[in-house]
Amino acid sequence: MAEKINIGILGYGNLARGAEAAIANSSDLKLCAVYTRRAPESVTVRTKNVPVYRADALDKGDAPADVLLLCGGSATDLPEQTPKYAAMYNVVDSFDTHARIPEHFDAVDGAAKRGGKCALISCGWDPGLFSVNRVYADAVLPDGAGETFWGRGVSQGHSDAIRRIKGVADARQYTNPSESAIEAFRSGRNTKLTTREKHTRECFVVVTAEADNDADKERITREIREMPNYFAEYDTTVTFITEEEMKRDHGAMPHGGRVIRTGKTGFEKENRQVIEYALTLSSNPEFTASAIVAYARAVYRLAKEGKTGACTVFDIAPAYLSTRTGEDLRAHFL
Amino acid sequence: MAEKINIGILGYGNLARGAEAAIANSSDLKLCAVYTRRAPESVTVRTKNVPVYRADALDKGDAPADVLLLCGGSATDLPEQTPKYAAMYNVVDSFDTHARIPEHFDAVDGAAKRGGKCALISCGWDPGLFSVNRVYADAVLPDGAGETFWGRGVSQGHSDAIRRIKGVADARQYTNPSESAIEAFRSGRNTKLTTREKHTRECFVVVTAEADNDADKERITREIREMPNYFAEYDTTVTFITEEEMKRDHGAMPHGGRVIRTGKTGFEKENRQVIEYALTLSSNPEFTASAIVAYARAVYRLAKEGKTGACTVFDIAPAYLSTRTGEDLRAHFL
Repeated sequence: MAEKINIGILGYGNLARGAEAAIANSSDLKLCAVYTRRAPESVTVRTKNVPVYRADALDKGDAPADVLLLCGGSATDLPEQTPKYAAMYNVVDSFDTHARIPEHFDAVDGAAKRGGKCALISCGWDPGLFSVNRVYADAVLPDGAGETFWGRGVSQGHSDAIRRIKGVADARQYTNPSESAIEAFRSGRNTKLTTREKHTRECFVVVTAEADNDADKERITREIREMPNYFAEYDTTVTFITEEEMKRDHGAMPHGGRVIRTGKTGFEKENRQVIEYALTLSSNPEFTASAIVAYARAVYRLAKEGKTGACTVFDIAPAYLSTRTGEDLRAHFL
Repeated sequence: MAEKINIGILGYGNLARGAEAAIANSSDLKLCAVYTRRAPESVTVRTKNVPVYRADALDKGDAPADVLLLCGGSATDLPEQTPKYAAMYNVVDSFDTHARIPEHFDAVDGAAKRGGKCALISCGWDPGLFSVNRVYADAVLPDGAGETFWGRGVSQGHSDAIRRIKGVADARQYTNPSESAIEAFRSGRNTKLTTREKHTRECFVVVTAEADNDADKERITREIREMPNYFAEYDTTVTFITEEEMKRDHGAMPHGGRVIRTGKTGFEKENRQVIEYALTLSSNPEFTASAIVAYARAVYRLAKEGKTGACTVFDIAPAYLSTRTGEDLRAHFL
């Protein structure tokens, strides 16, 4: 193996720590530094001999990262960070606010082109590997319908929304796909499922000492169930548990889901074909990070070939993600 | 929509007829001609106003096909045809003799480069979409194990092998995946399954009038079960049926299967992640052809960009398969 590819990480939350582990498991990659907006001395990374710097150490554009992974959040961090750093570094982000992807792409594309860098946005599993599978399936079965089901898994955004309710000390929200809806879609019986039919939401809530009474619990349940966008469109169950139960039973971050496309082929549309891509994940952030790290390898290679500007997973051929040679892939994976 | 892409087809068996239907379902593609080694007047195609020519009409290199689909068999047709035509046309084949893919790639690559053409080999679902999923999954979960299960589906090769036995009038062989083996692999309990554990083989046989007796049926059963490479390594059941039952119950060509990868992530390898890609197909040849036709679009675009030589599905980014614009894909599929 020649020189390793130097990967820098901005941020040190769950996603960043997952990326650190994925880099440690990749023979051709090396974590060169972690950049943080916290006090660097307060951050201890797990990889030996990796320095932690203040985020503004990136600002001159002279950090040694071949590719910089932007591990911040989509709400406020990435809309600012990705265009900023794409002007100076090859970057990968996991921007997942679906509705704002077009404007994010344009902002990053402009910055990366001006800087002569390659920037991959919206990487992970959804957006990411799920998106790739939606495109393959749509292209192969143009006369059909596609659907995505999520879960069973913890939704961080929904858990946070519950935590903002008065009287709530802690909360965990699981998104559950409806098995009967999945079966109806897969079989072609119902390809126009409503939001309520597709998923249910299951909430586990720890109340504060002050709210530990029937009236408050009833109010909290109602506030959850009626919350627009988050819960109002879903069948939602609320279960009150103790702090100990929360710690014991709900500490993991499982997730997953499936992308299904069902389509017809033949001159008389007489044959039904089903494509299904499913993930069952014990750790959502570690898997997301594993996808990002594989794509960081691809971005490094694309940048070496002279590719500049923003791109998405749709623009990257599978071989670019792999450490294996073309000969190896053709002989053993084709 | 601008000018349509002209697709030519060489051959007119099941795969070619599936491709014809897929082209008819694609708004940007047009079947320009079918080429056959049979007498052209004996072949009637379903698409209106499409001419049928003798295969040697391709030999001067002046046929109007932007991309030529080679729909012959892997045993004898494609090893000769693909290098020959790749020197003159952009081509796609479905070469599926796994062990001989490296030499086939080299022969096609040389010819296509000399002719300045782009040639995609081994397209379909396996090799093809399954291969793509093996590579993505291996890259994202390097510390893991991958496995492919096929079926339930009709294997043409195994059916043919039975038909060559003395006393057999007709035969249909189904490959069945073992559900318990799939579950053992998926759960991580057993990632080193044997050939016998993974699949069983189910044979339906019609005997000739002369062989319609217990002794011959016993001999046929034994000959099937002991046939090396095809059946000896599997648990094989043989059921004798009538010609009418064969026609009534076994006329379709279903197939499918699943590619599973299970891997570990985290510093202590503490989290198990499972990626699964599954196909459930009513018509194997029509689905294979649908994949080939989507990739023909990609080959046309790659050729326009100046790409020459042989390539595989590993070398082609998902967006190339789609009729949709980058903007559309980012807005609705990411």
